Order: sequence, then structure tokens, then C-alpha cells
Amino acid sequence: MERGGVNGADIGLSDARVEMLRARLGDDLVLSGADTERYCRDWHGDITTGTVAVIRPRSTADVSAAVKAIGDLGLSIVPQGGNTGLVLGATPDDPEGQVVISLERMTAIRRLDVDDFSAVVEAGIVLSEFKDKVEAAGLYFPLALGAQGSCRIGGNVSTNAGGINVLRYGMTRELVLGLEVVLPDGSIFDGLSTLRKDNRGIDLKQLFIGAEGTLGIVTAVSVKLMPPAEQVATALLGLNALSDAIALYRRARRDCCDLMSAFEFMPPVAFTLAREVMPDLVMPMPGDYPAYVLMEISGSGLVDIEDLMHRFLEGVMEDGLVLDGVAAGSRAQARNLWLFREGMNEGQAKRGPHLRTDVSVPLSKLADFVQQAEEAVTLALPDCLCVSYGHVGDGNVHLNVLPPAGLSRSESDSLIYQAKGLINAVLARFGGSISAEHGIGRLKKSDFASGLPETQARLLGAVKRAIDPKIIMNPGCQLNFAEDS
Amino acid sequence: MERGGVNGADIGLSDARVEMLRARLGDDLVLSGADTERYCRDWHGDITTGTVAVIRPRSTADVSAAVKAIGDLGLSIVPQGGNTGLVLGATPDDPEGQVVISLERMTAIRRLDVDDFSAVVEAGIVLSEFKDKVEAAGLYFPLALGAQGSCRIGGNVSTNAGGINVLRYGMTRELVLGLEVVLPDGSIFDGLSTLRKDNRGIDLKQLFIGAEGTLGIVTAVSVKLMPPAEQVATALLGLNALSDAIALYRRARRDCCDLMSAFEFMPPVAFTLAREVMPDLVMPMPGDYPAYVLMEISGSGLVDIEDLMHRFLEGVMEDGLVLDGVAAGSRAQARNLWLFREGMNEGQAKRGPHLRTDVSVPLSKLADFVQQAEEAVTLALPDCLCVSYGHVGDGNVHLNVLPPAGLSRSESDSLIYQAKGLINAVLARFGGSISAEHGIGRLKKSDFASGLPETQARLLGAVKRAIDPKIIMNPGCQLNFAEDS
Repeated sequence: MERGGVNGADIGLSDARVEMLRARLGDDLVLSGADTERYCRDWHGDITTGTVAVIRPRSTADVSAAVKAIGDLGLSIVPQGGNTGLVLGATPDDPEGQVVISLERMTAIRRLDVDDFSAVVEAGIVLSEFKDKVEAAGLYFPLALGAQGSCRIGGNVSTNAGGINVLRYGMTRELVLGLEVVLPDGSIFDGLSTLRKDNRGIDLKQLFIGAEGTLGIVTAVSVKLMPPAEQVATALLGLNALSDAIALYRRARRDCCDLMSAFEFMPPVAFTLAREVMPDLVMPMPGDYPAYVLMEISGSGLVDIEDLMHRFLEGVMEDGLVLDGVAAGSRAQARNLWLFREGMNEGQAKRGPHLRTDVSVPLSKLADFVQQAEEAVTLALPDCLCVSYGHVGDGNVHLNVLPPAGLSRSESDSLIYQAKGLINAVLARFGGSISAEHGIGRLKKSDFASGLPETQARLLGAVKRAIDPKIIMNPGCQLNFAEDS
Repeated sequence: MERGGVNGADIGLSDARVEMLRARLGDDLVLSGADTERYCRDWHGDITTGTVAVIRPRSTADVSAAVKAIGDLGLSIVPQGGNTGLVLGATPDDPEGQVVISLERMTAIRRLDVDDFSAVVEAGIVLSEFKDKVEAAGLYFPLALGAQGSCRIGGNVSTNAGGINVLRYGMTRELVLGLEVVLPDGSIFDGLSTLRKDNRGIDLKQLFIGAEGTLGIVTAVSVKLMPPAEQVATALLGLNALSDAIALYRRARRDCCDLMSAFEFMPPVAFTLAREVMPDLVMPMPGDYPAYVLMEISGSGLVDIEDLMHRFLEGVMEDGLVLDGVAAGSRAQARNLWLFREGMNEGQAKRGPHLRTDVSVPLSKLADFVQQAEEAVTLALPDCLCVSYGHVGDGNVHLNVLPPAGLSRSESDSLIYQAKGLINAVLARFGGSISAEHGIGRLKKSDFASGLPETQARLLGAVKRAIDPKIIMNPGCQLNFAEDS
């Protein structure tokens, strides 16, 4: 403390650590200073932090060496994929104590076996790139997210990513056949099998799926592939109420023989919001309905998917479950229907800071939850706009709350905070989850911890300390753990 | 050691422990002596063992009390469901130190929510009973096993049971939404949510699925339900070679739009074996083919499943992929086709002790594996008969080896042991699993341990000791662990 004070001392210390990492891992793998900035900004650009260094391994052996080197320096590790997460799981919260390991250079497809309906890929491949290569081989990888042009498969696994097609193909967990993981001591868990059935004891890989890098670094993944979705039928339907969407979903699962790949609900305001950013968007049907469903059926081979959609729509309109509907007659028309879904999101972003939630409830309670949660918000915060949409088949609601225009940042932040509390209180009554698909990260940590039963907390602590006794893997993410004594 | 020797002393000790369990838990919950016999015999009736007592709880609170009482006595616990397992996972191997906890009295359906496509059931309900009740409510629970009239859902979860419909609906793991588990200290893990999407951190319930009771006792389960399979089309197909079955499977997944619910292969000898126990069975088609496939397509609603099967068969016969085929025209005919599959198993049992395997390989290597493994066995043990059948879509082969008639038990046991070694050696070259769906239990423990990579062994030990530090949950099952020091 004699010269330079705390700041100067810390910077000197950081520099020395960077030099030690460079000496041990080679300059090629290590970024520091201004080069680390883009790894320290979250996806929305709301939060900027810092890091001692960013390590960019080219191989699993590199990751293992980096983990050991970082551990030896007494530093901890924040694994990062495409950095598209929404809960601050992949950006440091301790700039002087944490090193980012980015998987962005590990992008190889190690194997793509068409007859095995499987592939083995490195963690850093961008999701859409992988999907394209699978499609070129005549198969299909069904994970589909808004961020798929930037997110990377290792991050998808570590967050157990969801998305549009979950009702048909499951979360990322259900697509994973095997994992390669670098553990906190630098050893390598080699579980890259593509076996469909393997009941050799406890399935360790499950621990790393959804762990957000708190137990190890996913370096490669083997995944299931599907037959191509050669035919896709898309329709937008106008309903009398959101509760009718639940009944319609039940009917659709039966009538469409589980061939549905998406079943999204949207509020009427979706169209207003979409047109605010895409003024040329054509309204897909006349009239105005209290609730909308965007639904997709898809398949390959001998089933006539378009005909199936037409016969389904005929039936449900005859029965009055759907008031009006439009089926896309072409890929362009289908694209146009999905544009409303995407435009709605962009329209919300354009209106400024707002509450984004990602909750889930039992499917049978989805309509009641939305109604009661919106009522609670509207009663307490009458100037705010509620926008509820999501995935009916998964009971997953994005109930967003938009403060009125013209507020200061602190005024709107206060409304957002209040709205979150109101929604979480209703959610608790429904036995819902505060994170359906985005994860916990650092953003939802305190809400997660406060709702965690004691037995679960104890088990999580026991598992964490069993695998990462020095608490060096993404500390500060999901939960705070004290080092094993 | 003064009077009665070791046996007398042990019996006295056992008696005292039984009395202490009765005093603490009540007579109604505790069986001892001859009443415990049927809980101590394995499913095939090959092995008979003993136990201090059998506890039969009526509630989760009873299970918790029993776990605490048994732990206080310094005894350990063997959880048991329907006792239909094939790997000695649910029967004691230390009659003087282990207490069986049978879940057979906990059979309630706590909730069946048709709109949520979910149910919450207690661990002891018999699978077929649960399936019937779900069907009566207009839905479908797709887990389908030979033992479904006796096995119980808690055992299905603890062994991650597979069965016939895995290629469409996944293993038991993929059907589980939530679990309630009594932990080794008697505390209760309450995770009975029915949420489809819940990304709140590490998914602890995954640890207990497939753990065969080594981490806790599953007392209740919430599961996914499906639309009913109103239409089922079944066909038996004759092929030129097993390798054609792989090509046919690929074609069928595409053509049939992922609506296949079974795709089994069988050898020609299946019919001989089936007729040995069911002499009246009608041969479903003329001619004799090198390989057979039994396939099922199913669905509900607006897709014409029978028409789909006919058009598929037309196409593949035209292309020469299938030499001959017969589609069942009625439920009775379909039943008759499945009888060959079941009769084949009974026919093997009738021929006496034989090697039953349950292995898996990557789907693309299934035909090569069967050929090489059968060659290895036939070359070394020319008098033995190989019977290979299984689930193509899962890469799961039951390659059984039948010693010739007229051998003594020790002679046939020696052939069985040699055949297992030969098959496992080929399996290792293919990166296969020695347990595709049956689990490890006590039967496969040494094969499992000898093939276990060091990193996996270390992780399994760390997790086991983190959750069960006193090693009281099903010790001797899956792996041997030393108590935490």
C-alpha cells in the first residue's frame, strides 16, 4: 500500500498473472487488456465488467492446461460460449479474480454419422452453422433459438437451452447423447458416446447439462439427429381467449398425431408492437381477436403435412374453438407469420428498458396464471403494458412488463422491480419456475436462492463441493458456495 | 462364541434388531423370518438370499422413519419395487446387514391432470395398472416392458427402464418430470413438479434416475403423458440380411415421419423357438428369410396410420429392401405377430440356463457387431446357439447364447462364462455398453468396474459420498464404495 494504492497494486498483480498465463499457455491462447472487452459485455449490452484475461483454447488439451494454470494462480474460471445468455452466467463478476475461457475456437465437427443419426461436435460451433451442416447431410438438428446465429452448442448444453421446438423434441438435455468435460482439476471426463441406451449406473453427464459451467467446462458434445423436416405447415389462428388455446393444444396434439413442432401464443398487442419496427408488415388476417396462436406442423416422407393442417383447421373452426385462421401457402407466407413473433420482441426492445420474464407453470394452469399475474400488475401499476406470449406446449410464459414512455431510467427500473415482485408472488401460488429456459446465472441468483428448499440447497452444496472443492468453476453463478473446509 | 457359534449369535442379534424395528415402526410395517422369502428371490428364481427384515411403508413419512431407524441400527438398506430386475439390484447380498424396504404398498395416483398431460404417482404402483388408469382417462403412458404386469414405477425410474417404445418416446428418464426421494439421512427431496421446462440450476433429480437405489429411495414420480395411440399398424418383414434392417430403419424414420413406435429385429430361429413353447402358433408368412423386422407405427387423430404402413411397405418392397412382408389386418393378427417375439424368449428359457446379454452399440454398427460377435462365439464354442434380437432404433442387442442340451449345470455355466467374455471383447472394440437397459445391480458390477475409466470412477465416488457418506443405500449395488473417512 506504499505506492499506487489498491488500484495500482491490483493492476500490477493482474499484469504479473497475465504474464504467468502467457508463459505457461503461449501468447496465442491469451488475450488481455482492451482485447478482452467484448467478452465482458452481456448480450443486451446492459452490463460491462472486466477479467484478468481471456483464454481461447484450440483443443481439449488446451482447455485442460488452462484450467490447471488458472487454478495454480489461485484464480477462478468463467466459461463462455457465444455469450448470448440472458442471465449473466458467462460474464465475470470479479474482474480481478476471474479468467474467461472462451470456447469460440473449438468449432470442429468431429464426426457426423448419418446411419447413426448422431454427430460429435466441439463446444464452440455456432448453432446455426451446425444446423446447416447437418441439413447438408440430409438430417436435422431440431434445437431452434432466436440467438442461433451467435450462440454455441457448448452454451446450449450448459444452459439446457429450450426454444421453439421443445414440445416436439425436448430441451437440449433430451438431444444430448454424450459429453466431454474438463473438470475443475483439469482432468478430462470422456463421455462422448453416441449410444442411445446405456444404463451403466448413474448418468454423470446429466450433472453438467444446465450447470452453467459451475462443475466443469463442456468441450464437446454428441447429439441426436432427426429425419429432415421436409414439409412444414404454418398457421396463425385467432381465438376467443387464451384459455381456448389450452383446449386447442390438447386437440391439436391428438389430431396432429404429435407432429406439431411449435404452438406459440401471442396477445393482440403483438401486431401493434411488430408494426412499430416493421411498418410494412402485412396483417395476416382481418379482425382483431383476444388471443392468437401460431402453430407449426412438420414432418418428412409419406404424411401429407399440409393436408393434415387443413383438415385440422377445418375441424376446429367448425367446432368454434378457432374463430379465424390463416394457413401459409408458401415459405414466404410462413416467414411472414413468424415475423410478427420476432417483430413483437423487437418492438418491445424499441420501447426501452422493460421487464423480461421467463417463467413456467403447469400447462393446465397457463391461462389462469397469465390472467392473475397481469391483473396483479395492472392493478398496482396501471400505466404499465403487459405483453404475455410464449410456448403453450411447455407451459412457458414470457410475461413482459413495459413501463410507460418518458420515464427516467431509475423510475422505470423501480417499476420493473415492482412488477417482478408482483409476478413472482403469483407464480409461487401456481408452483411455477422463475426460470423456464434461460437459467439462473448471476441475474436470478438471489431469487433462486430465496426460493430454494433446504434439502435441495444442501444437496446442491454437497454435489458442488464433491466435484469442485476449491470452488473455482464459475463462482458467483447460480449459487454462492463457501470453499470446503 | 461360547454357545451356539456364529450362526446362533447372528440370529440372536438379528432378532434383537427386528424387535427394535418393530418397536420403532410398528408391527404393521415389519416382516421377518419366513415372510421375507419372496423379497429375497430374484426374478429368474436363480438366486435366493436373506434379509434382517422387510419394511413395507404406507407413506413417504413411513419411508423416512424406516430409513432413520435402519441407519440408527447401523444396518443398510436395499430398496425394492416389483423385484423384476434382471441384474440383482433389488435383493440383498448381506443377509445379516441389510434390510429390504419394499414400496409395494405405496400405490396411489396422487394426481392425474389430463389438461397438463401429466400424472403424479407413488413408486409402488404396478406399471400396467398405471397404464390402464391413464388409458381410462383418455391418455397414454408409453413405457412398455415385458414385466409390466409386475414391475413398479419406482423401479422403472431407479433402473431407467427401456423397453419396446424407446425409439419413439425415450427411456424412462425422458418421461420423468419430477421425483420425490427419501435421502440416506431420512430427509425428503421434494421435487414432484410437473413443469415441462424448469431451468433452475443443476437438475438434481437426474442423479436418482438409473441409480438403482444407491443414492436414495424414490417414493413418488411425476411423469409426462401422451395422446392415446388410437391407431396401431403392425407388420412383420422378411429381409435379406440384418444390415438391410439398418437401411430400412433409416428409410422408415423418414417415410413414417417419426411415428414408429417399435422396430425390432429377430433371427429366423425365433420362429423355431417360439413354436417349441407355442406349437399352435401360425407362421405369419411363407418362406424363410435371413433376418426379420417387426415394426409398429402408431398415432391418434387425423393421420391414417394403416394407410401409412401400406404405402411404406409398397415402397420398400418395390425397392427390394424388403423381400416379403405381412401387415396385421386386425388386433388379433397384430397380437399374433408379437407372440413370436414373446414365444422366442420363452423358448430360450425352456432350453435351460443360457447367456442373456443386454448390450448396445452405435446404431450404424449394429449389423457388424452382431456378425462379429456371433462369429467369435461360433468359432470358439461351435455347439452353442446364438440368438440375436433387439431394438434396431436404439442399437440395443440381446445376443443370447444357448449351450447344447444334455450338459451339467457346471458345464453350461462354463460355456456361458466363456461366451460372455468373447462377446464383451467384441463389444469393447465397438465402443458398446455392457448394459443397455437392465442396469448394473450386483450381477454386472465387476464387469462395470473393470471397464470404468479412472475419471468416471472418481466422480462416481465423490457423488456417492457427498449424498450417502455412510454408504447405507444399497451398498454392493453398482460399485463398492468405502465409507468416508
